[in-house]
Amino acid sequence: MERIWILGLKKFSDRDILYMKRALRLAKKGCFTASPNPMVGAVIVKNNKIISEGFHKMPGALHAEAAALALAGPKAKGAAMYVTLEPCCHTDKKTPPCTRAIIASGIKRVYVAMQDPNPKVSGKGMRELAENGIDVISGVLESDARKLNEAYFKYITTGMPFVILKTAMTLDGRIADAQGDSKWITSEKSRILVHRIRSSVDFLLTGVGTVLADNPCFTSRIKGGRNPKLIIIDPELRTPMNFSVCKTVVNTTFVVRRSSVPQERMQRFIDAGFSVLKFDSEVLEIKWLLKKLGESGISSVMIEAGSRLNAHAVSQGVVDKFLIFVAPKILADSKAMSVFESGVFRPISEAFRLRNTRLKRVGSDFLIEAYPDFKPTD
Amino acid sequence: MERIWILGLKKFSDRDILYMKRALRLAKKGCFTASPNPMVGAVIVKNNKIISEGFHKMPGALHAEAAALALAGPKAKGAAMYVTLEPCCHTDKKTPPCTRAIIASGIKRVYVAMQDPNPKVSGKGMRELAENGIDVISGVLESDARKLNEAYFKYITTGMPFVILKTAMTLDGRIADAQGDSKWITSEKSRILVHRIRSSVDFLLTGVGTVLADNPCFTSRIKGGRNPKLIIIDPELRTPMNFSVCKTVVNTTFVVRRSSVPQERMQRFIDAGFSVLKFDSEVLEIKWLLKKLGESGISSVMIEAGSRLNAHAVSQGVVDKFLIFVAPKILADSKAMSVFESGVFRPISEAFRLRNTRLKRVGSDFLIEAYPDFKPTD
Repeated sequence: MERIWILGLKKFSDRDILYMKRALRLAKKGCFTASPNPMVGAVIVKNNKIISEGFHKMPGALHAEAAALALAGPKAKGAAMYVTLEPCCHTDKKTPPCTRAIIASGIKRVYVAMQDPNPKVSGKGMRELAENGIDVISGVLESDARKLNEAYFKYITTGMPFVILKTAMTLDGRIADAQGDSKWITSEKSRILVHRIRSSVDFLLTGVGTVLADNPCFTSRIKGGRNPKLIIIDPELRTPMNFSVCKTVVNTTFVVRRSSVPQERMQRFIDAGFSVLKFDSEVLEIKWLLKKLGESGISSVMIEAGSRLNAHAVSQGVVDKFLIFVAPKILADSKAMSVFESGVFRPISEAFRLRNTRLKRVGSDFLIEAYPDFKPTD
Repeated sequence: MERIWILGLKKFSDRDILYMKRALRLAKKGCFTASPNPMVGAVIVKNNKIISEGFHKMPGALHAEAAALALAGPKAKGAAMYVTLEPCCHTDKKTPPCTRAIIASGIKRVYVAMQDPNPKVSGKGMRELAENGIDVISGVLESDARKLNEAYFKYITTGMPFVILKTAMTLDGRIADAQGDSKWITSEKSRILVHRIRSSVDFLLTGVGTVLADNPCFTSRIKGGRNPKLIIIDPELRTPMNFSVCKTVVNTTFVVRRSSVPQERMQRFIDAGFSVLKFDSEVLEIKWLLKKLGESGISSVMIEAGSRLNAHAVSQGVVDKFLIFVAPKILADSKAMSVFESGVFRPISEAFRLRNTRLKRVGSDFLIEAYPDFKPTD
């Protein structure tokens, strides 16, 4: 056990940080494909030189550690490995546990960015390495590694999907003009970035209002991107079959109120290849929906919706991360659509607070990334 | 004439830039007091050493160049001067022209950040120096120098005050909750910065709605700050005499509709030491008001007002600069006060665009600084 050191007990050298940074960069190569697995990168270093690298491409493919070891071959003997997540030790999956491969390779020391929160691993992987005579040093660039897989970590520990709320607004908080037109508030650069982000989540969640107003495609139009699956909250199943969401997106789920839609219409959608998820309550509870999604193995959802659904998601406390694109424009029209609209009075002292805000320029716009600093209101 | 070089014809050395930066820093020392004069700083350098410095403190006090020369004495002979604005050459003011003092001192070379747009100087100062055998190099850190005195430059070239619109809002563009409460949207750090900014403008402009809702002080509660004068658009003169604006601010001007206020009430305000400016139109035209202010020598105005006056100022195209403090909070209440409210429909394609946006963190908030990129709508 004395072979495991964690951050604070041992300082890392600049070289350690450099190698782990490289491993994190490699991990990101899996951002469009690794889900529902975490993104992981690994680097093998011998005599101050990187001798091999690997990352986890997709479920079923080699883990990062195994990929790097395969590339290094017998040269791995006596080398050090830098890996962005604690190596797995469990066997109830398609690929063999990485701990065994590492032990077999003759690796002498393993630098780990962070312990795997997955209860099946969670410290056991590091312990197994240490018990087999390998030095394990944990905590190198831990916060970067934690952020990289924030969606996976939430899902694996709670069973609920990680929820991003993405929106694009004017400086005065408007997401569409008074006639519902939102094309285009933000710049092309921002819209391209949105396509990238769409590729990295499992599902997009929107409301029928947004579909009817914008007839959006919700596709990821970038090289190497994948189209996310789409969930449309459409209690009365009002989406016309000739709309883009029914044509370009293959995997669309409609969330409908059982009592509001004739069985015949529902069947037509099912026959056309769409999924239909029924609810019985008067108003759809987004928490119920997310729980359903989590149960069917969906680890990340991005909400791209209108004022009402945005406000509902915030007030229900289900948002894990905000991505707010702000265009340097002012509408100054009281009737334009606000980014969050609800009929509930909220005093300034009880505003929903955000934390860890980060600002980033994207073309002429900027992007506010933030996390909620408030408890769900039940 | 061949003694004058401007940016592009001659490159500046790192040292030149360093000395001009120092001069710009000195100039800023006058930020609370120099108005309606520009802020100017000067540095005298001999044998690669700063031998004296100066800045313009207030109207009537020595100009920066004269202050630096006085400190240098006979050592100025053969030295170089770095000054943030073209030295003055005209005599219709309290202090003697700086060009003469520079020529008399034996200064060999003058680096000027920018030509003075004041038509009384505008190139004549540099020419006079050159005609007297002094090398003049213009354009060192010109854009910094231009920004430093942006208010003065607008005023001196157009006769209209430079107008800043300052506001503090939530992330979703709300400046008060539905009950009108705005205490406090932003953090203490932001509010301290607002007090600093207040100290640097001649006048604050607000509406009676803001006064009645918040009973604000509008003072500058920082060390070395000065309280700006206040203009309240109050057509019916509804401000109660026991409100803070009538007590803490000595120089308050009420803008009233002549036909709406009994002469007797107006006289009571005048007797109490307040100024009253009367207008005759049904709706106050902010352009008319600003013209009046410009005519009486007011070079800068900061609008700190409510939704309606903010929107009016934007739509009338009178805003020169936006300072928007954004708190990382969400109100998500449709009835909360928006930062800009008007009943005029505006399509997204015709939104008011901003340019040169700059972002700055201020405590937990951030500050968006921007300039309008739209023409006034007449």
